[in-house]
Amino acid sequence: MAKSEKINFSTPSGFPEFLPGEKRLEVYLLDTIRKVYESYGFTPIETPAVERLEVLQAKGNQGDNIIYGINPILPPNRQAEKDKAGETGSEARALKFDQTVPLAAYIARHLNDLSFPFARYQMDLVFRGERAKDGRFRQFRQCDIDVVGRRELSLFYDAQMPAIIAEIFDAINIGDFLIRINNRKVLTGFFSSVGVEAEKIKSCIGIIDTLEKVGEAKVIQEFEKEGVLAEQTQKIIDFINIKGSVDEVLDKLKYLAQSAQEAEIFNLGVTELETVISGVRNLGVAENRFCLDLSIARGLDYYTGTVYETSLVGHEALGSICSGGRYEELVGVFLGEKMPGVGISIGLTRLMSRLLKAGILNPLAATPTQVIVVNVQEDLMPVYLNVSQTLRKAGINVVTNFEQRPLGKQFQQAEKQGIQFCVIIGSEEAAAQKAALKDLKTREQIEVPLENLAEAIKQRLAP
Amino acid sequence: MAKSEKINFSTPSGFPEFLPGEKRLEVYLLDTIRKVYESYGFTPIETPAVERLEVLQAKGNQGDNIIYGINPILPPNRQAEKDKAGETGSEARALKFDQTVPLAAYIARHLNDLSFPFARYQMDLVFRGERAKDGRFRQFRQCDIDVVGRRELSLFYDAQMPAIIAEIFDAINIGDFLIRINNRKVLTGFFSSVGVEAEKIKSCIGIIDTLEKVGEAKVIQEFEKEGVLAEQTQKIIDFINIKGSVDEVLDKLKYLAQSAQEAEIFNLGVTELETVISGVRNLGVAENRFCLDLSIARGLDYYTGTVYETSLVGHEALGSICSGGRYEELVGVFLGEKMPGVGISIGLTRLMSRLLKAGILNPLAATPTQVIVVNVQEDLMPVYLNVSQTLRKAGINVVTNFEQRPLGKQFQQAEKQGIQFCVIIGSEEAAAQKAALKDLKTREQIEVPLENLAEAIKQRLAP
Repeated sequence: MAKSEKINFSTPSGFPEFLPGEKRLEVYLLDTIRKVYESYGFTPIETPAVERLEVLQAKGNQGDNIIYGINPILPPNRQAEKDKAGETGSEARALKFDQTVPLAAYIARHLNDLSFPFARYQMDLVFRGERAKDGRFRQFRQCDIDVVGRRELSLFYDAQMPAIIAEIFDAINIGDFLIRINNRKVLTGFFSSVGVEAEKIKSCIGIIDTLEKVGEAKVIQEFEKEGVLAEQTQKIIDFINIKGSVDEVLDKLKYLAQSAQEAEIFNLGVTELETVISGVRNLGVAENRFCLDLSIARGLDYYTGTVYETSLVGHEALGSICSGGRYEELVGVFLGEKMPGVGISIGLTRLMSRLLKAGILNPLAATPTQVIVVNVQEDLMPVYLNVSQTLRKAGINVVTNFEQRPLGKQFQQAEKQGIQFCVIIGSEEAAAQKAALKDLKTREQIEVPLENLAEAIKQRLAP
Repeated sequence: MAKSEKINFSTPSGFPEFLPGEKRLEVYLLDTIRKVYESYGFTPIETPAVERLEVLQAKGNQGDNIIYGINPILPPNRQAEKDKAGETGSEARALKFDQTVPLAAYIARHLNDLSFPFARYQMDLVFRGERAKDGRFRQFRQCDIDVVGRRELSLFYDAQMPAIIAEIFDAINIGDFLIRINNRKVLTGFFSSVGVEAEKIKSCIGIIDTLEKVGEAKVIQEFEKEGVLAEQTQKIIDFINIKGSVDEVLDKLKYLAQSAQEAEIFNLGVTELETVISGVRNLGVAENRFCLDLSIARGLDYYTGTVYETSLVGHEALGSICSGGRYEELVGVFLGEKMPGVGISIGLTRLMSRLLKAGILNPLAATPTQVIVVNVQEDLMPVYLNVSQTLRKAGINVVTNFEQRPLGKQFQQAEKQGIQFCVIIGSEEAAAQKAALKDLKTREQIEVPLENLAEAIKQRLAP
């Protein structure tokens, strides 16, 4: 067979692909995340990978993202159809770059078929034409939840988010993490109370958001550029540096709120934070899993209340492993209706790839196979097939070895793939309706009657 | 909030989107299919949605498919980067239109990290720029398995495919189905034995493939156009119409093989079919689930041996619900190595959408929620949150109602969403550490101590 020598068959830069053991890890993480999301009543949806370009650009004109447009390429034998196939202009379509604008479109498309508050999860691939840097992908999977109300949405939904984050990261067992909670109204209100002009507040919040990356000196510079007075900057820096236990920080905020009663928005933010924290506690989130951190701002424009980031303790350089917040004017964009929402997002592709690199997560075995029925002699194949089916019916993942190879080789390959058991049946065993069961982990080998084989394996399977 | 009046927020034509109950059905089908695939040791992989265009065109030059190319669209504030962002020519990229060429590329990319025979499943979205007709999508999910060998691959892998198909369609409970098995070598060999020239055989197989759609008269016409003699055509028509039990058809084939011993390829095909059928039987596939059907040809060029189609009995117009076959020269295309494979594909998006339309499948409930903790009085919220968490820890999917609404409304909404249970706790119940548990299906309401609530619900949950 001739090799197509000139074809560069590598993946395009930024479009990741995983080995089987890594993909199995992703499937496990997706299952774990899904289970937690569903336990809080979030229902799955999936919006198309492709939307009308004008939909994707509806909110904030695609922000800073490079969108991938799509254009039909006809096969050589159908070039004549070219005119008909080209869909451009108002028909221009592109790949989605996040799941927020598509959620808004989904709600607009199905408004009368949905129940509100509408709590959905979505774990689709999204696409951004960014230059592919270390850990930055052009295709990646985000695991988002949002709950969206019509007109109103209880703050207890904000309180559930840290409970959900904590359950997920406890379940996937990646060590200590800390959910850092803040409220945009607290920041906005405080900025306003120290005299920052209303129109500068959004960019000031953007500057605060860069604090961990660029450091305090650079933040002070940026404030200066923005025209914030040195005295105001100092007050802001002191404010976002307030440290202490959740109750200590809350007490300081309440004290500030009392002494600045004219700052309505600040006071509202403090009350919201208090409610959210009491909900988080009622939901049983461990005290060491969350904190109030007034320096958390989130870069995105649309947040209006509670905001969250999550750090992996000892690995803060990884950045936030789960973030989100409350917004008011995002989801109703296509309907002209106020639809407040709160949501979080786990950037799974990036997170997994970084945790693998840091050795915090490891790939699973390269195959789901738990048992290999080895091929001792070809004429026993009917027995091997039959035994394999019996084990499968008992819920065990089985490969029957069809290739005839020395037994040692068959054990070796099973072990290399991380398979725990080999079932060995020669003519003697077949006649006696027995099998030898070899545990490749413990090196133990026992004889088991065929009728008890499934049970014997299930008892010994590593959890 | 202003409505973006001019935006057409509908999905682009051919890009499907499902309501929550339909998406939940898809998730259930994917889980079921995955479980069966994994029970035979198939391991998950996912190749990027985007490949280099030259990779997608490597085999058969994209066939008849319209591929979607992708091109970066810069945000207005970054137009200056235009030159750098454009990636065209040898860097041209496009969305994958099937999972076969990407599998070949995956194997080429990771050859030394994979174990052979390499058995993988893949359930990714693929994209084709076809005109969107009824039931035809431009974005759809295919659930494929293939097992690929280096140089050789046992025919028992071919025998496993009908076992896998049967298990999946038995599990999803869509009624009677029939797996129709044939072998391309039998067809090729027979065509050759009646005197059809070698170079016409592929198109003749293509014509046979259209039989069910266009009928016998049209097939005879097409053979005539192809220059096949009427006498040859008659023999072919008689041949593909051979009917009977599996053993009857096999016997006829063996008889034909004996009387035409010079037709090596035919005889090889018959031997292969025999081996495959004996494997299918050893795997315990019920006799009413499969047949030999000599009119099954499969349109795709690359099949070289066993081929499969699956009909839903009584709904044959739906077309094949699972198809596949054996191929020799497909997967090694990037390596210049012979890598025989055998695989099947379930076109899940199309299948599900057609089964929903035909009423053979129904959407699931719109939410995974099993229990609503209703909101009787706001000041008991700490109790509601605590009870909800206890139920979740027991593996139950729970929504706490944060909105204060009349109880009747709360029951109504729960029922509308298909939620089975309401937990009702007023101040009396809270004081007595009890709850009222209302089953919305049976209308039964009982009192349960809070400590037994999870158990009581789990016992009563519909399976």
